[in-house]
Amino acid sequence: MAIKGPVAIILAAGQGKRMKSEKAKVLHEVCGRPMIQYVVDAARGAGAKTIVVVVGYASEQLYSALQNEPDILFATQSEQLGTGHAVKVCRPLLGDYQGPALILVGDEPLLRPEPLADLLNRQKHEGAACLLGTAELADPTGFGRILRDSAGRFLRIVEERDCSPEEKAIREVNPSCYVFETPVLWEALDQIGTSNAQGEYYLTDAPERLMTMGRKVVALKVLRADDVLGVNTRQHLALAGAIMQSRIQDHLMTEGVTIVAPRNTYIDGRATIGPDTIIHPFSVIGGPVSVGANCRIGPFAHLRPGTELADDVVVGAFVEIARSKLDGGTIARHLTYLGDAVVGRDVNIGCGAVTANFDGSRKSETRIGDHARIGANAVLVAPVEIGRDAVVGAGAVVTRGKDVAAGATVVGVPARPLVPEAD
Amino acid sequence: MAIKGPVAIILAAGQGKRMKSEKAKVLHEVCGRPMIQYVVDAARGAGAKTIVVVVGYASEQLYSALQNEPDILFATQSEQLGTGHAVKVCRPLLGDYQGPALILVGDEPLLRPEPLADLLNRQKHEGAACLLGTAELADPTGFGRILRDSAGRFLRIVEERDCSPEEKAIREVNPSCYVFETPVLWEALDQIGTSNAQGEYYLTDAPERLMTMGRKVVALKVLRADDVLGVNTRQHLALAGAIMQSRIQDHLMTEGVTIVAPRNTYIDGRATIGPDTIIHPFSVIGGPVSVGANCRIGPFAHLRPGTELADDVVVGAFVEIARSKLDGGTIARHLTYLGDAVVGRDVNIGCGAVTANFDGSRKSETRIGDHARIGANAVLVAPVEIGRDAVVGAGAVVTRGKDVAAGATVVGVPARPLVPEAD
Amino acid sequence: MAIKGPVAIILAAGQGKRMKSEKAKVLHEVCGRPMIQYVVDAARGAGAKTIVVVVGYASEQLYSALQNEPDILFATQSEQLGTGHAVKVCRPLLGDYQGPALILVGDEPLLRPEPLADLLNRQKHEGAACLLGTAELADPTGFGRILRDSAGRFLRIVEERDCSPEEKAIREVNPSCYVFETPVLWEALDQIGTSNAQGEYYLTDAPERLMTMGRKVVALKVLRADDVLGVNTRQHLALAGAIMQSRIQDHLMTEGVTIVAPRNTYIDGRATIGPDTIIHPFSVIGGPVSVGANCRIGPFAHLRPGTELADDVVVGAFVEIARSKLDGGTIARHLTYLGDAVVGRDVNIGCGAVTANFDGSRKSETRIGDHARIGANAVLVAPVEIGRDAVVGAGAVVTRGKDVAAGATVVGVPARPLVPEAD
Repeated sequence: MAIKGPVAIILAAGQGKRMKSEKAKVLHEVCGRPMIQYVVDAARGAGAKTIVVVVGYASEQLYSALQNEPDILFATQSEQLGTGHAVKVCRPLLGDYQGPALILVGDEPLLRPEPLADLLNRQKHEGAACLLGTAELADPTGFGRILRDSAGRFLRIVEERDCSPEEKAIREVNPSCYVFETPVLWEALDQIGTSNAQGEYYLTDAPERLMTMGRKVVALKVLRADDVLGVNTRQHLALAGAIMQSRIQDHLMTEGVTIVAPRNTYIDGRATIGPDTIIHPFSVIGGPVSVGANCRIGPFAHLRPGTELADDVVVGAFVEIARSKLDGGTIARHLTYLGDAVVGRDVNIGCGAVTANFDGSRKSETRIGDHARIGANAVLVAPVEIGRDAVVGAGAVVTRGKDVAAGATVVGVPARPLVPEAD
Repeated sequence: MAIKGPVAIILAAGQGKRMKSEKAKVLHEVCGRPMIQYVVDAARGAGAKTIVVVVGYASEQLYSALQNEPDILFATQSEQLGTGHAVKVCRPLLGDYQGPALILVGDEPLLRPEPLADLLNRQKHEGAACLLGTAELADPTGFGRILRDSAGRFLRIVEERDCSPEEKAIREVNPSCYVFETPVLWEALDQIGTSNAQGEYYLTDAPERLMTMGRKVVALKVLRADDVLGVNTRQHLALAGAIMQSRIQDHLMTEGVTIVAPRNTYIDGRATIGPDTIIHPFSVIGGPVSVGANCRIGPFAHLRPGTELADDVVVGAFVEIARSKLDGGTIARHLTYLGDAVVGRDVNIGCGAVTANFDGSRKSETRIGDHARIGANAVLVAPVEIGRDAVVGAGAVVTRGKDVAAGATVVGVPARPLVPEAD
Repeated sequence: MAIKGPVAIILAAGQGKRMKSEKAKVLHEVCGRPMIQYVVDAARGAGAKTIVVVVGYASEQLYSALQNEPDILFATQSEQLGTGHAVKVCRPLLGDYQGPALILVGDEPLLRPEPLADLLNRQKHEGAACLLGTAELADPTGFGRILRDSAGRFLRIVEERDCSPEEKAIREVNPSCYVFETPVLWEALDQIGTSNAQGEYYLTDAPERLMTMGRKVVALKVLRADDVLGVNTRQHLALAGAIMQSRIQDHLMTEGVTIVAPRNTYIDGRATIGPDTIIHPFSVIGGPVSVGANCRIGPFAHLRPGTELADDVVVGAFVEIARSKLDGGTIARHLTYLGDAVVGRDVNIGCGAVTANFDGSRKSETRIGDHARIGANAVLVAPVEIGRDAVVGAGAVVTRGKDVAAGATVVGVPARPLVPEAD
């Protein structure tokens, strides 16, 4: 099968010992998604048609996490012999592919697609065998430095541990983001040795090697500081999350969403939210969620994946909603859980009312018609349907399958039609 | 009717396109109140006796939002012909008013009254036709710059787009905060033309015009950077909210309130809180609320407008209270909603207990006597009264109007007096 | 009784007027514990075997707060005659104790034990009569400054109010952290007068006095800026809490705990948490709590003292747990309160289900067996036991003492064994 280009190779074989985790490092989550997912998305956003993920530690976890992604190939690096080796193990998969290869690392979740697209374009136009994407950092600690000659031309990468004091002061760094012309990449990697402190094959030796071979190598400062945050610890993970969260919220605010307290709000990047909706402090909108225009999301609201709110919906304090649709004007103001529910227009969900959607083995659906009113602390045991204009009394337990007819009122435990009580 | 001075004119006609909102820009809220409300309050705090609000976009919304404010006049700017024109439309309203006019913009909610009072005083003493309040900013981007001569005397305002590179480096800015002698203001405005890039009448041309007319104009650096944050985007709105929140909390801490985690706490500026009360992280105190001394407001507490807590009250996690009074020593420790309730001393509200105060059309009151105990997950359907020392059993639903006598115990759904059960 | 050394003297007699509090200043809490507790712990961590706490204002509160601490002596300073006097009142208690005395102030809760241990060691090796621990601060405002001679030798401490402009620019400060050789300390204090602006005995005069007496005094810059934050206002208290919280979280992240949003998470320093556990935003873990590995602590979770979670436990939104054990794999996903409960493995606690553990006078225990399922909005009135594999229906109220047999299903209010209902 011919490989469609451009190809992206994502290095994801490392264990990340400093994470102290049973989980593969690149599967730790940033704003609700595994960090490698962001790198895959950035590569695709830059135009990559085929993605090769190099796996090693906990490879089964990676297969599983990425199983629904199309056009992904896995290359296995069984021994950790360095980044150069990691790229080399992709060679059999790529066969005689002749196009460009974008090489990225799986632990830089903040990489944006734009500079990667830029690198791919420039490689084509410059006819370079290798383009390095670089960044200038206020604090370059931990990164290899970019050495240039007096004319500003790329010379080579120096690893931090090998830096002279002068080199250490260089603030242009190598965040491990390259475009290579594939065939000459293999040539260069064949010539790289392991005569270094770690006894490993370094991908960072490849650009210099290519220059020795008479090929053109260019380093372009296309990356921003926030693109190149590499996650090696849980502290880095938290920092990456905070930066990603800022980006997500900044986009939403620009589109007309009020976020009262950005630093006290968490919104998944996959959420869509309509204009003039107000998100109050201490709200969490996790996963794919859609919120209409002019909604009010109160403090302490928790919208989980699969929530769809139409316009003018009010979700108040201590309300959790998952896999549910609420139609326009519906209100769930306090202390409520709605799971697997389909709720009509202008419904009032009383405080403490909940759907019991899980019977211990499977989840079932609750349907609530337009204008229905669900009393305080009522329980709706799914599957069950509450008709339009129906009223469920406070504290009532509507048992499984005991649908409530449109316009009816039910009360009690278990809920039965209301019989007016003699005084 | 004679106009009482000093007069404040607040410019609030703009749409604020970057907000992407159906709502008038100045009605977007900062810490729970429309931003123009802060400007009105600052003007009054500085001594203004009459407030003229210049409306244009969504003027009906402004009439409605400010309808309970006394001594407010509205001037309508039907066409957006510039800030000079906006002031001019106030002229018919002010008639032959001769006193000073404080001119402010409605989208600077952080303006404090003190420097405005200072400006009004100084105008009187200096006999200036115009006093400009200015601020020195670390980053003056977006503001007109204040030009002064070598002796430091005010020369004129240069809009940013007209600045030379040298002028751009000036950090003293014009935040659109002036005191004018009213009659000469009208004269100056009559002489201002529209020969500029936007084809608009600029209020910023008035000071220079007055100098040409031989009148005294003074620029005083009386404003701080945090006074002059103009809100043009939802990002600005969030930033203004954060600064206002700091001011509110700083005041409370100085008065003896412990705020465990200031950046994880939201308190409306109208709340009053007694000394030695502790506010734990993730609490929201919204709107006019009064909290006594030595109360404990737990994490995840939500006090809404109309809440009045006496001393020594404990409000715990996931508790929401609205329009309710709790007397001394009463405890609502977890998962509770109290709405429209009057609760006595030393009452214990069990976890999950709620008042059902809304019957779908109107809200009713719940009264709970001293020392009563409300069981876990109980529901009190309003209107209803629970007598002193009464006990409501766990899960009981006290139905509408079925008052519980003092000292009685009720259980069940619906709640009935307890009959000891045979084993 | 002979005094075991080293001795630590902690000055804690002041009122802290700027706190505006009925509570002794050093008893205000930082991350859930009185600030003096941290100073006591730091002194012990540095090797102190006897702790003398100098009390004055609200001394009863201090006795009570520290009553469970071993090896603590209290010295009473009845009149506030200065820090020198405060130390002097310890003399009778210490009798003829000859060893070193570490002197600290009770309102610096961020002092770490390591530099204090360092000071104690160095005093011994240097044979100094007095060692001062100093810190270099970006902003030294409010502290006494350390004067040194041209050779860098300690000369004396100058109080800020007595500083010349040159001295004010000195950034090395005296945070009131000393080691003295005890017998000569008493000699020096006897020679200190009250001829200063406040008419008080200053401990800060002692080092200079010792030099006059021909004894060796050394100042060592062993403290960091974050060690020496003195708490005099509620604002300082909040700042100390934020720094302490960072330290606590940094330690946990290094040990392999994911904290999704460090600035939106509160964890008591006494909590232990296993690796690969994820703490979502807006969670509070207060007091001594133990959380196993691979747990998921959702947004809006509140774990209070005495909570013990085994591995793989899920605690979701709006769930509070206190004094309870949950065994492996158990799930409490939303809107739940568990107090004084012992819960088995793989139990499912439905949303809104609560334990009613308090009958108005005492708290009782709830036991729930492995694999049991507790329905939504159910109430378990303690003391009560739910057998393994039992099912409690939605909205059921299991009354006090009505244990549910293993494998049984109960429903209703009050809960009774399920009798299948005819259609």
